[in-house]
Amino acid sequence: MKKLRAGILGATGTVGQRMIQLLEAHPWFEVSCVAASDNSAGKVYSQATRWMLDTEIPQAVSKMTVQACAPGLDCDLVLSGLPSNIAEETELQLAKAGMPVISNASSHRMKPDVPLLIPEINPDHLDAIESQKKRIGGRGFIVTNPNCSTIGLVFPMAALHRKFGLEALHVVTMQALSGAGYPGVPSLDIIDNVLPAIDMGGEDRKIETEPLKILGRWAGNQFQDVAIRMSALTHRVNVRDGHLEAVSVKLAKKASREEVEAAMRDFTSPIDELNLPSAPRPVMILESHAQRPQPRRDRDRGNGMAVVIGPVAPCGVLDYKFRLLSHNTIRGAAGAAILNAELLYKKGMIG
Amino acid sequence: MKKLRAGILGATGTVGQRMIQLLEAHPWFEVSCVAASDNSAGKVYSQATRWMLDTEIPQAVSKMTVQACAPGLDCDLVLSGLPSNIAEETELQLAKAGMPVISNASSHRMKPDVPLLIPEINPDHLDAIESQKKRIGGRGFIVTNPNCSTIGLVFPMAALHRKFGLEALHVVTMQALSGAGYPGVPSLDIIDNVLPAIDMGGEDRKIETEPLKILGRWAGNQFQDVAIRMSALTHRVNVRDGHLEAVSVKLAKKASREEVEAAMRDFTSPIDELNLPSAPRPVMILESHAQRPQPRRDRDRGNGMAVVIGPVAPCGVLDYKFRLLSHNTIRGAAGAAILNAELLYKKGMIG
Amino acid sequence: MKKLRAGILGATGTVGQRMIQLLEAHPWFEVSCVAASDNSAGKVYSQATRWMLDTEIPQAVSKMTVQACAPGLDCDLVLSGLPSNIAEETELQLAKAGMPVISNASSHRMKPDVPLLIPEINPDHLDAIESQKKRIGGRGFIVTNPNCSTIGLVFPMAALHRKFGLEALHVVTMQALSGAGYPGVPSLDIIDNVLPAIDMGGEDRKIETEPLKILGRWAGNQFQDVAIRMSALTHRVNVRDGHLEAVSVKLAKKASREEVEAAMRDFTSPIDELNLPSAPRPVMILESHAQRPQPRRDRDRGNGMAVVIGPVAPCGVLDYKFRLLSHNTIRGAAGAAILNAELLYKKGMIG
Amino acid sequence: MKKLRAGILGATGTVGQRMIQLLEAHPWFEVSCVAASDNSAGKVYSQATRWMLDTEIPQAVSKMTVQACAPGLDCDLVLSGLPSNIAEETELQLAKAGMPVISNASSHRMKPDVPLLIPEINPDHLDAIESQKKRIGGRGFIVTNPNCSTIGLVFPMAALHRKFGLEALHVVTMQALSGAGYPGVPSLDIIDNVLPAIDMGGEDRKIETEPLKILGRWAGNQFQDVAIRMSALTHRVNVRDGHLEAVSVKLAKKASREEVEAAMRDFTSPIDELNLPSAPRPVMILESHAQRPQPRRDRDRGNGMAVVIGPVAPCGVLDYKFRLLSHNTIRGAAGAAILNAELLYKKGMIG
Repeated sequence: MKKLRAGILGATGTVGQRMIQLLEAHPWFEVSCVAASDNSAGKVYSQATRWMLDTEIPQAVSKMTVQACAPGLDCDLVLSGLPSNIAEETELQLAKAGMPVISNASSHRMKPDVPLLIPEINPDHLDAIESQKKRIGGRGFIVTNPNCSTIGLVFPMAALHRKFGLEALHVVTMQALSGAGYPGVPSLDIIDNVLPAIDMGGEDRKIETEPLKILGRWAGNQFQDVAIRMSALTHRVNVRDGHLEAVSVKLAKKASREEVEAAMRDFTSPIDELNLPSAPRPVMILESHAQRPQPRRDRDRGNGMAVVIGPVAPCGVLDYKFRLLSHNTIRGAAGAAILNAELLYKKGMIG
Repeated sequence: MKKLRAGILGATGTVGQRMIQLLEAHPWFEVSCVAASDNSAGKVYSQATRWMLDTEIPQAVSKMTVQACAPGLDCDLVLSGLPSNIAEETELQLAKAGMPVISNASSHRMKPDVPLLIPEINPDHLDAIESQKKRIGGRGFIVTNPNCSTIGLVFPMAALHRKFGLEALHVVTMQALSGAGYPGVPSLDIIDNVLPAIDMGGEDRKIETEPLKILGRWAGNQFQDVAIRMSALTHRVNVRDGHLEAVSVKLAKKASREEVEAAMRDFTSPIDELNLPSAPRPVMILESHAQRPQPRRDRDRGNGMAVVIGPVAPCGVLDYKFRLLSHNTIRGAAGAAILNAELLYKKGMIG
Repeated sequence: MKKLRAGILGATGTVGQRMIQLLEAHPWFEVSCVAASDNSAGKVYSQATRWMLDTEIPQAVSKMTVQACAPGLDCDLVLSGLPSNIAEETELQLAKAGMPVISNASSHRMKPDVPLLIPEINPDHLDAIESQKKRIGGRGFIVTNPNCSTIGLVFPMAALHRKFGLEALHVVTMQALSGAGYPGVPSLDIIDNVLPAIDMGGEDRKIETEPLKILGRWAGNQFQDVAIRMSALTHRVNVRDGHLEAVSVKLAKKASREEVEAAMRDFTSPIDELNLPSAPRPVMILESHAQRPQPRRDRDRGNGMAVVIGPVAPCGVLDYKFRLLSHNTIRGAAGAAILNAELLYKKGMIG
Repeated sequence: MKKLRAGILGATGTVGQRMIQLLEAHPWFEVSCVAASDNSAGKVYSQATRWMLDTEIPQAVSKMTVQACAPGLDCDLVLSGLPSNIAEETELQLAKAGMPVISNASSHRMKPDVPLLIPEINPDHLDAIESQKKRIGGRGFIVTNPNCSTIGLVFPMAALHRKFGLEALHVVTMQALSGAGYPGVPSLDIIDNVLPAIDMGGEDRKIETEPLKILGRWAGNQFQDVAIRMSALTHRVNVRDGHLEAVSVKLAKKASREEVEAAMRDFTSPIDELNLPSAPRPVMILESHAQRPQPRRDRDRGNGMAVVIGPVAPCGVLDYKFRLLSHNTIRGAAGAAILNAELLYKKGMIG
């Protein structure tokens, strides 16, 4: 089988690096070109990038010349790890030039005809692509994945909403340093410290809005949000990878603690039968020990693609409370985009 | 003026060390003796203790011989930083022997006639001491201060409950290492990590119950809890000192964001006029920057005795949300006990 | 091929856990029993141990019942990760009962007839075993590996001594937390800090003496040290795994910087042809970037069994200076013992 | 007494902030103006700066308008915390305009007629100022203090060189994050890590050369270096403040361990009798515990102006080895410059 050729946008950043790492031995895709900002364009990748991961740069990519983020890249699809300020214009330009753009950037996430896709949860949101193509005017299109804190949260939301109806969700996050990119958080700010209100509260707002689109539905011409009351308080902690979230929920229908845990443990997805290479089985892992999940111990479960959930307990204010953890640069970014690409490929929408 | 002589129980522990540090230049009290476990008894203090604080051991204390925690200590009052398992019996024994025991331990906090005292909030709870003395049978008695996470939380609770009525409170804590004592948390557990469910959830329960007694009332023969729905999720983070808490509240009476902030900013206490040496003015400091409070930057405000509160924002699930920070071994432990002793002294109940 | 059955002594400790992890898919050995202190004996392994590694406990081991560290274990050899105070007696007892003991403990390292073995460097030291067996009186014997800081250091020492003669070596270490075991270093000691003089200087002495035995020779009835002047200053830093060492050397024979680097890069070992499963190729990796090696980025090179060495530069006091890094619980402990066992097996001395 | 008016160059940086903090209650100097880069010029100081220190911004400074770093500042002297690339030109320009410039920047340190001044060690180096004034052509001049790692090291060097003659010194540093300024070291680089070769080895070279000038002499028209062989290996560790250094020395004259310690403990300085406000007494504190000094516990000794030295031990390669610690932004930068200004004032060279 001939592999699809993937171009990586923002290839020198933390998300771009993870994309390259995760595609090293991918059965369907291979990195055919790398693109980044003008600073890096023209340089050899190994020179242009400050590689942060524990494994080595894949040989083939190491020697590639970094290109500009513009139409003309030699690939069948692009995976974008661009910063949002640049992504908006660049991704649209590429889509207009006919390229499928699978993006981790926030710029297009909330556009009325852009899928905010999690394959296990809302694969039917791909129905929007036909409309989007018409707007953009060609064969190219944009598909996005959620914010790195949203994504872990949406899994239990989907499971509980489906079974019991979800009325309200309150979440406090403790997020890892890699979520801020590189150079990101200065060490003098985080040593012996916690930093509240990531992005001055912008992160809180993403978590409060993105799940409503994800759990909503495509109404033929635009996405319609689901109605769940949301509240988020975000924090940066001195952890390398892995976002921990403390969650409380209010359900529409009465349910026992056991039923709540079972709803998450037994969650099945319409894509389970597709056997996508990056899809973890199960996608939610329930831990019974009160002091789990922990970022360092649980972030790599399911190759960094699983969401680990701690024991459920009654909440004195809402109905139930629990904690969850997901790897922010794998399930929360690079791995999410790749899984989206896998779904598109399996559905015949790329390649 | 002759200073009252204070004995320190658990003098070699983290709380005992802070008590000794804070009393070094105290206007009313001086350390007259130090007591600790049998391991340490008989040794010179400087030899027996692994001093953890940035200042030097006060000269006078440094040379004292550590005594056993038993009746016969040469002092007018004891301040207890004992671990809870030992405190229960030892403190009662000392009280029975006629000693005023001002304790940071949890053992007696929830007893029906033991004040769980915060001078700025419930000084009238000292009314219980007469009953307690009768039970114990002598001149001695026990007064306690709350858990290090409870105490920061109770200040905004008191302010909001007084003005608007407080129906429900949800809190997620990010607590410092020193709260676990010494040796406490192994470094291999916390590096690049967060630890949920402190004390396997025992900490959550203290935070959910202690405020109800503190904000309740003395009913003549026992304390009666106030009715507020509470939910707590606790975490240990890689910070030396300073507990950060993310709080959401539901009020009985409608109030604007500005009124909520004003209720905390303008909080006054019956003891303000007493000018107790360790009482900070103001006790609650409101910060307007979204990314405050932070443990390292705000823990020493008001000499570690103030509670620093971040900006109030609407909560999508309850009514309002905000963050607070207090120094866990000063306001949350040693300083709390000393302030209690100051109130007792000013009221003529010791000395 | 039937695998040799290995018993793990000190199976619940940090070194014992690594041994179990590294043997999970070993081609020659399998864990047949686990033994630990009386506290743990009788419990199921998964209950008795606080597993610290990122991978899961191997299924088969997870369910084993922990046994006492005493003769009668059902295995062909034991790998010992016991603490030194217990190892002395226990290991001797097992050897006397006929068991090959491959130990990471320091107790027997400096005994006149006990090999302090690094297969790539002094495989001929196994000649001492015949004498040792006579002393002990049976078929059992003890083979040890060096201290976790010594081992990384000895590789460049061996390469340079062989080529140029080594007159003096000065080393300053920055060692990882896992070297102190679990619970090990209290987090309050290491946050925002560095701790000098590990083990009150005992660690310095091990580093100053062990290499002299390793690079020395078996003189028929005892080991004779090589004569190299040594100086070590040790420190604990806030790093999980990976000991970094800053080294300066004085050579007997003049050599250029390039020759010094080549001596290490081109190092070959008599065991290269044996293709032992855990032996990395090459064993020394030379990095040309001035800011390498770094603990987090380089500790896993060669599956944690390689020694990574930074660029060599002229030293203003001795001749040359450079830095090295090795994984302290793999190359420096569990992996070292396993590699020793592999050499013994290949030489027909066990099994 | 009327205080001298000090202008702070680079006032928003980490060193500038420390200068402002340390001058808050200074008996001789007061901050009269603050200057910084064009980005900040024109803004109110509290808005322009990201204040990093635990104390509040001094009220008076908080409201000052930041000025450009150019002649015309309203002050009697300037203290410069400028980055080196900017300092070279700017400081010279100010000196030419008649201003005494007391600088922490490295740009002018090694100029043949610029004192690299440590008041306790080489106050006679101020003799060079007359020559320098002639070169510059006016009443202005430049005085510098050493690199933050050099300064702690020079104290024992001075003590030992004076008593025994110093032939060679080998030092390995473990330096704090604040030495890299702000934003400085990215947190993703330092978490669970150590970074070797600060400034790609540029820091090593400063440490190997600056002490030779400091301990040298003014020969009438230029400074002449002392002859001591030097070797330095630098590292960045995960510590907020406080540089730890592991030192080995070779002496010209035989001396016992006790004599070496005494030479440092009994060190006296020609300026002792001047009672400069920021001069600590003693300037070197000898600790007898093997596991001291430690950054967090010892950096604030002598208000951050003392150098703390651990026990001296024989070195197997050179003669003796020991560790030292000094606060890098106080003794190593801001406090060093202020002490230089104090000496100049007392000598009647400014004001």
